[in-house]
Amino acid sequence: MKEYFIQNAKDFVGETVTLKGWAYNVRKSGKIWFLLLRDGTGIMQCVITKFDADEASFDVKNVITQESSVIVTGEVKAEPRSPNGYEMLVHKVELVAVAEEYPIAKKEHGTDYLMDNRHLWLRSKRQHAIIRIRHTIIKSIRDFFDDRDFTLVDTPIFQKAATEGTATLFETDYFGEKAYLTQSGQLYGEACAAAFGKIYCFGPTFRAEKSKTRRHLTEFWMVEPEMAYYDLDMNMDLAEDFVFYIVSQVLEHRRPELETLERDISKLEAIQKPFPRISYSDAVKILEENDVDIKWGDDFGGADETIISNQFDSPVMVHRYPVAIKAFYMKRDPENENQALALDMLAPEGYGEIIGGSQREDDIDLLINRIQEDGASEDDYSWYLDLRRYGSFPHSGFGLGVERVVAWLCGLKHIRETIPFPRTISRLNP
Amino acid sequence: MKEYFIQNAKDFVGETVTLKGWAYNVRKSGKIWFLLLRDGTGIMQCVITKFDADEASFDVKNVITQESSVIVTGEVKAEPRSPNGYEMLVHKVELVAVAEEYPIAKKEHGTDYLMDNRHLWLRSKRQHAIIRIRHTIIKSIRDFFDDRDFTLVDTPIFQKAATEGTATLFETDYFGEKAYLTQSGQLYGEACAAAFGKIYCFGPTFRAEKSKTRRHLTEFWMVEPEMAYYDLDMNMDLAEDFVFYIVSQVLEHRRPELETLERDISKLEAIQKPFPRISYSDAVKILEENDVDIKWGDDFGGADETIISNQFDSPVMVHRYPVAIKAFYMKRDPENENQALALDMLAPEGYGEIIGGSQREDDIDLLINRIQEDGASEDDYSWYLDLRRYGSFPHSGFGLGVERVVAWLCGLKHIRETIPFPRTISRLNP
Repeated sequence: MKEYFIQNAKDFVGETVTLKGWAYNVRKSGKIWFLLLRDGTGIMQCVITKFDADEASFDVKNVITQESSVIVTGEVKAEPRSPNGYEMLVHKVELVAVAEEYPIAKKEHGTDYLMDNRHLWLRSKRQHAIIRIRHTIIKSIRDFFDDRDFTLVDTPIFQKAATEGTATLFETDYFGEKAYLTQSGQLYGEACAAAFGKIYCFGPTFRAEKSKTRRHLTEFWMVEPEMAYYDLDMNMDLAEDFVFYIVSQVLEHRRPELETLERDISKLEAIQKPFPRISYSDAVKILEENDVDIKWGDDFGGADETIISNQFDSPVMVHRYPVAIKAFYMKRDPENENQALALDMLAPEGYGEIIGGSQREDDIDLLINRIQEDGASEDDYSWYLDLRRYGSFPHSGFGLGVERVVAWLCGLKHIRETIPFPRTISRLNP
Repeated sequence: MKEYFIQNAKDFVGETVTLKGWAYNVRKSGKIWFLLLRDGTGIMQCVITKFDADEASFDVKNVITQESSVIVTGEVKAEPRSPNGYEMLVHKVELVAVAEEYPIAKKEHGTDYLMDNRHLWLRSKRQHAIIRIRHTIIKSIRDFFDDRDFTLVDTPIFQKAATEGTATLFETDYFGEKAYLTQSGQLYGEACAAAFGKIYCFGPTFRAEKSKTRRHLTEFWMVEPEMAYYDLDMNMDLAEDFVFYIVSQVLEHRRPELETLERDISKLEAIQKPFPRISYSDAVKILEENDVDIKWGDDFGGADETIISNQFDSPVMVHRYPVAIKAFYMKRDPENENQALALDMLAPEGYGEIIGGSQREDDIDLLINRIQEDGASEDDYSWYLDLRRYGSFPHSGFGLGVERVVAWLCGLKHIRETIPFPRTISRLNP
């Protein structure tokens, strides 16, 4: 049996079809009633009269409630005054189940209340738009790498050692051993770059962030490409092409959803290649010119990132950070050993860091020094050091946080709406 | 600068190009030496003579070792006698780093040794073929659902309650609360089906499997579609189209890799739609006819599944299992309340269950009964029960285990080779 979905209404104008969904809204007016039917792909205005529908169908109006599940059959017509440009003249209404009084009303609810009812809140127009934009972002990410012959490698969630410091590790008992949940697939990605040349991993990563911020989740999705024989410049070229592609795909495929969110689309349309590239030292100068109390060597806070990114319409890449504030695996700049060949990409409009990456240290002695300086155990990284023993090679990569990009492109103030069921320090349910 | 990769050799025959990779093998013969260069996309035979190469390049033969990283420049020619049909006449060899004696030699190694060196073992032709087939399987999965307007929803890894029983849960401390690692995204998927109609989630799932078997990992990837207004038959139709699509994509894009693995491709080519569909009761009869000591109500073991699947060339769907051996959320058959509207799909050639699914219970009272019968807490499932309070709807879905499908299509005896870094009861490193 052929399936019909509201988002494809233009394909079945003039036909009599059956749509299955839920009552988004019901409005009654004597001899006629209007049902806004939500089927998960869109909303259709359905018109029920005694003239076109049978009596039992007409009388459904006496019992139907918001979010009741319902199947309607009728003729679809173009109707410019209707929300989606079409409406259905209904012949038959089949009430599947009457919903109890729906807990999310038209009135304003507090955020905690909505998050407690996240499983229902997802049915709203706003959440629908966000999750569909998220879908397009993720599809764009995979298409970008697949089209460029990157090999997908799913790196392990259970790991024995930290990639990004030990302060934010989640731990579990693994048959008597301690295992940590991955903070990053990068070290494994480097092993795979030696096997496959260009790879990407893409999965959930975990940080036990103890602070409440609008930018952090404890569980978030990250894509991490890693490329053999790429230096920092090639890495930045790729990052730029990549983010530009994501933005252009969202603009091409999700304009109605951006409009639902009342996103200022002109800000996204203003993004152009090449993206500006400035050194960390240049960024410090920008901050100084803006009266920020900062000195060379300090890390940037969220407010600093906003000042820097506000100088530009496109995302800006900041490169060559001080070694001391970056991870142990980043290669030192041969021209200045206090600098790491790192890059961060900052999104416009104050959305902060969306990419962090670097060229990797390929000198085994320097790498061992850095591990020791971090107070970590060389043993934990012995397999990682093997990559420098057996055919060490220049290579680079970066990580992009999906939820940060969703927040930016959707124009969301808080990251909690960027994923169906967000996890934060105070949120494990639903 | 343009990049060249060995897999695209046919596109640059006659050109002088630079290739970057590792020495897969070196063979010396007086005034000529041969380098098999591995770049992660393929292997190219490179010929180095004193005539064509400069002296320094020629002399690299005196120090180069297996897996040394190396950059070669030369002219690419068609050469039918060469492994990939091409060879390079080398002008210049640049040795990037000399590898220490490579721990994986041509001789046979034990599995434990190879798994200890998994980060290096991935560089072998066999592992390369498997991971690239895995890539194609995952891409096919996503393309299948994306092309059919399913919305991707990333369901949470940290969960408060069990989906598939409490015996195999991994636990972590979540800021003072207990959190479990997801066994399945299904319950969340059902909430999303009510919001988006047709959805899929696709991510890592976890089972603390205490047994050593060749079919189980503790960490494995699962895709789980969930469809509003789908009954069991529509669910089986979708599962059939889905698996057929994956097989056809692998046959279309990964034939060389299947050949590398010496897979009997004819077995995959024999797969045809429609797939056989038999009831659990019919399956029991098949087992009885094969002298298996089984009675109605017993669950199938691996050996039983092999006997059943051996009756057919295509995957077989077994439906309507006894309620008692299936999960609490499966809908009872209105025509026989001892049967659940469940389906399992068994792969041919003894590869066992690759899909498990069902129509879901949409009657809240029956669902509460089943939760209580399981000794679980109704409170833990309160948000899940909301889906039946607010517009309950017929719906169905299934889960497909990626690693099982990789093992089957690649013809692997053991599941440990199906993922870059497998996790089993005895394996957490590398």
